Amino acid sequence: MIETNFELPPLVVNHVRLKIDCLLAYELDATCEFLFMIHAAQGMGQTVIEETLLIEPATPFRTYSDGQSGNRFLRLQAQAGPFKVIYRAVVDLQPEPPDLCAPEMEVHDIPDGVLHFLMPTRYCESDQLGPAAQQLFGMLPHGYSRVQAICDWVRCHVNYRIGSTNAGTTARDVFVQRSGVCRDLAHLSVTFCRALNIPARLVCGYAPFADPPPDFHAIFEAWLGGRWVLFDPTGMAPVEHVVRVATGRDAKDVAFATIYGPARMVDIQPEVEHVQAITLATNT
Amino acid sequence: MIETNFELPPLVVNHVRLKIDCLLAYELDATCEFLFMIHAAQGMGQTVIEETLLIEPATPFRTYSDGQSGNRFLRLQAQAGPFKVIYRAVVDLQPEPPDLCAPEMEVHDIPDGVLHFLMPTRYCESDQLGPAAQQLFGMLPHGYSRVQAICDWVRCHVNYRIGSTNAGTTARDVFVQRSGVCRDLAHLSVTFCRALNIPARLVCGYAPFADPPPDFHAIFEAWLGGRWVLFDPTGMAPVEHVVRVATGRDAKDVAFATIYGPARMVDIQPEVEHVQAITLATNT
Amino acid sequence: MIETNFELPPLVVNHVRLKIDCLLAYELDATCEFLFMIHAAQGMGQTVIEETLLIEPATPFRTYSDGQSGNRFLRLQAQAGPFKVIYRAVVDLQPEPPDLCAPEMEVHDIPDGVLHFLMPTRYCESDQLGPAAQQLFGMLPHGYSRVQAICDWVRCHVNYRIGSTNAGTTARDVFVQRSGVCRDLAHLSVTFCRALNIPARLVCGYAPFADPPPDFHAIFEAWLGGRWVLFDPTGMAPVEHVVRVATGRDAKDVAFATIYGPARMVDIQPEVEHVQAITLATNT
Amino acid sequence: MIETNFELPPLVVNHVRLKIDCLLAYELDATCEFLFMIHAAQGMGQTVIEETLLIEPATPFRTYSDGQSGNRFLRLQAQAGPFKVIYRAVVDLQPEPPDLCAPEMEVHDIPDGVLHFLMPTRYCESDQLGPAAQQLFGMLPHGYSRVQAICDWVRCHVNYRIGSTNAGTTARDVFVQRSGVCRDLAHLSVTFCRALNIPARLVCGYAPFADPPPDFHAIFEAWLGGRWVLFDPTGMAPVEHVVRVATGRDAKDVAFATIYGPARMVDIQPEVEHVQAITLATNT
Repeated sequence: MIETNFELPPLVVNHVRLKIDCLLAYELDATCEFLFMIHAAQGMGQTVIEETLLIEPATPFRTYSDGQSGNRFLRLQAQAGPFKVIYRAVVDLQPEPPDLCAPEMEVHDIPDGVLHFLMPTRYCESDQLGPAAQQLFGMLPHGYSRVQAICDWVRCHVNYRIGSTNAGTTARDVFVQRSGVCRDLAHLSVTFCRALNIPARLVCGYAPFADPPPDFHAIFEAWLGGRWVLFDPTGMAPVEHVVRVATGRDAKDVAFATIYGPARMVDIQPEVEHVQAITLATNT
Repeated sequence: MIETNFELPPLVVNHVRLKIDCLLAYELDATCEFLFMIHAAQGMGQTVIEETLLIEPATPFRTYSDGQSGNRFLRLQAQAGPFKVIYRAVVDLQPEPPDLCAPEMEVHDIPDGVLHFLMPTRYCESDQLGPAAQQLFGMLPHGYSRVQAICDWVRCHVNYRIGSTNAGTTARDVFVQRSGVCRDLAHLSVTFCRALNIPARLVCGYAPFADPPPDFHAIFEAWLGGRWVLFDPTGMAPVEHVVRVATGRDAKDVAFATIYGPARMVDIQPEVEHVQAITLATNT
Repeated sequence: MIETNFELPPLVVNHVRLKIDCLLAYELDATCEFLFMIHAAQGMGQTVIEETLLIEPATPFRTYSDGQSGNRFLRLQAQAGPFKVIYRAVVDLQPEPPDLCAPEMEVHDIPDGVLHFLMPTRYCESDQLGPAAQQLFGMLPHGYSRVQAICDWVRCHVNYRIGSTNAGTTARDVFVQRSGVCRDLAHLSVTFCRALNIPARLVCGYAPFADPPPDFHAIFEAWLGGRWVLFDPTGMAPVEHVVRVATGRDAKDVAFATIYGPARMVDIQPEVEHVQAITLATNT
Repeated sequence: MIETNFELPPLVVNHVRLKIDCLLAYELDATCEFLFMIHAAQGMGQTVIEETLLIEPATPFRTYSDGQSGNRFLRLQAQAGPFKVIYRAVVDLQPEPPDLCAPEMEVHDIPDGVLHFLMPTRYCESDQLGPAAQQLFGMLPHGYSRVQAICDWVRCHVNYRIGSTNAGTTARDVFVQRSGVCRDLAHLSVTFCRALNIPARLVCGYAPFADPPPDFHAIFEAWLGGRWVLFDPTGMAPVEHVVRVATGRDAKDVAFATIYGPARMVDIQPEVEHVQAITLATNT
């Protein structure tokens, strides 16, 4: 159950409000250092209306933001024994409808700060999948519809199957084996985009769907028409309802938890609830 | 120049006669053990009319055949220094026109001795490329035309480029990078066949073409209509003009030379000359 | 429970008698073709005293042996629904004590039929691990003790951990990740041997130990002093108590079951019981 | 020949002065976008006394620095035809002698901005090489001497051999094949450090040695005693004589040229000349 104990500001028309209640529980065999990325991002089309953080047992912690990516980190050292983090937030999204005619940009015109999202990375070997990307999508009209075609191809050819991949699986593996989970589908899409000289990056966030069992959701962004445009190759969530947590080049940059020490996850429940505008309207 | 110094039997109508003159030269830093597979196979649709073997410097050698594959081996130990093997032969091929309606066989009906050509091997990871093979060729009508469709797909999508692969490159790599040489194209074709439960195997031989520079040529066979049928996904040589040397599950089984010791190849010239039937007819 | 319903011949002094009771159960969604290798090998230091095969539901089957390897195959087509195979046997082993001074053989002296066990294979990339093998074992005295040193190194450096590898894991992977199960340890040992020009091959069999939970056990053989000598890098079973089922170049050659069609394994219980010589002596 | 046409400031005692004359030449089949990192870094223990950039044919360009890494980029679009960039500089290095007793830092004490240099990256799979790193270096005393032991191990076990690796070779590959060039040795060292929770990063620069043929040199830095300390696992250049160009997580971050379009490199000559302090002293 998600509840908030004070009055929230009314929801602006056309905005989307989501409540997040995320529990992460671990069992630690010894002192461990944790680096979490579970806070909703500030800005980038969303506003954090309210948020609380509970850590059990009480543990000193530090939060900080990365200047370039806007990602918010929670860093702490936890002692041996059970350990729990609960993050709750209410976030308003101001989705911009995508411009279905947004063009691709010539490499020469891509801003310096965006250019490195063309580079291959560990999970997105766009250098190796270049010829395949050209064969599949090279002849299509450039722009938004080409990235949409990539998403469609990935959804049709890569079987969504929990357990079919692991922490080491890359876009190359997914292209061969044709199965994966959300992050794998996003990696392959990102890889195709970069291979076609379309900057692309991974986005991790909270998504309001119940099936498959709740987990952090991975989608991606492509640079089209001079801005970042969200896509979900799994088709599971409307991208305008995903609360952004972290943005990065691939899964390594957006891991929700990086742990140094002997810890076992015992529970993960990132609950997300869609707050209907109509309901809130009656509240005001 | 290839010449033979005695009268050859006349060529039977519809048969194909080829002369082979294959030179392999090495520089050895120490004593090396060599295992060659350069002799034309006996049987399997071809007849060795005449053959000679020259080894310089003169070196004791042993030849033997593998009972199962019919492959003929030349084994010897060579001393440090320059070392050369010249194999010359005249071979008549009795090509059978392929049955364009040859059906695939149910797994249950595949003979015991053929069944293991369904297995994945080092260079043909048919277990990993199964879903892709199904997506590309699963819906096609079964039989000869489906294997032909595999060859067509491979020729269209894999760029023939010398130097783009090495001794460790597998079908999986070729599927990703979309470039390779004859053995790579054959490996990928074999892999697709096996993934679709069509037994397939690699064939290495002498092919009568001058461009690209002469080398051993790799093609493949699929089990259709109760017999092995040859295919060349490179489209470089008519398969009925390839003199078979070795047959095996993948490149490891058909390597023309396996060397134990410090040897460098300094020359390779497997010349093949197509002897016109008409020319020989006038000789008799 | 293992029981035999007739009088067995007395056990010869120094021989070892084992009873096998192996159950394999599957659930089939459609007709499947099975190729099993679960029969104890005949010869190669062991005698099958008695064996029975139960197949439920009753299904026509065929058994045959591969001439080269001596492996015995069971091939059948099973219908949709539950499906079970039970193989029971009593096998006498005539273990020869290993010659601890057995020498390695020069490549030149390795018999033709043994030479191909020097080749790299899919799971044993001896071509890639050559330099590491030289660094680790190149300076050691040649012979039995060097292969024993390989086993010791593998046991000390590769953590036996069920679930740490899968069907695609190769010796290269095991060398990097330093964990695996019996077949992985055997693969890595075989790979080191081949890289040092010692022919080596995988052996799969029934082993009389209860912990870890019963499964087929993989060990390996090296060619020393002119014969094949067994080694177990896991140290779990005395090699002279392992009932040989299959012999091959790597795991692909010795898989206990190869299945074409949609089948799920629901049970596997290869029970092995060590019959004490003294007990049987009183029976006679 | 390197020459400078005006008077340089005198060299400070204990400083090291180097002159760089770096030529990169390409042949372009069409318009290409270039992103170079060839400028000597400003700060981080070095001072750029003088620098010039020549581009032929004359082409508009832009230079900018990345705030986090300090890397300096040169970005431009060149037209089809021959294309040449010459960068010349005089750089003074203020080497600090390494503290041979510098301790490692507990993960908890590693600054936020340094922590991500513990992460595995594409070329440095520290997650996969963790057990091997522990086996090789886990028992050694922590601190500077442990990183030195890593360098020694890498130099002894990885054969420096030009041509043995390519753009896709990772630390994992190098650990297996035991050969590589400077960037490969640096990648493997970085990987071992990270696997032991020592932050480490790649440094690319100009090194004053003539053999092997001049190229950009890759070394690495480990975080010890609260600062970055340079190491060269190849042992080719004293690290205090390397002019730093780029700093990053692995080779992808420090590539001297990233090219979008059809360009072939036709020449690369990063000449570096060590200007003796004594010579300059007489100049003043």
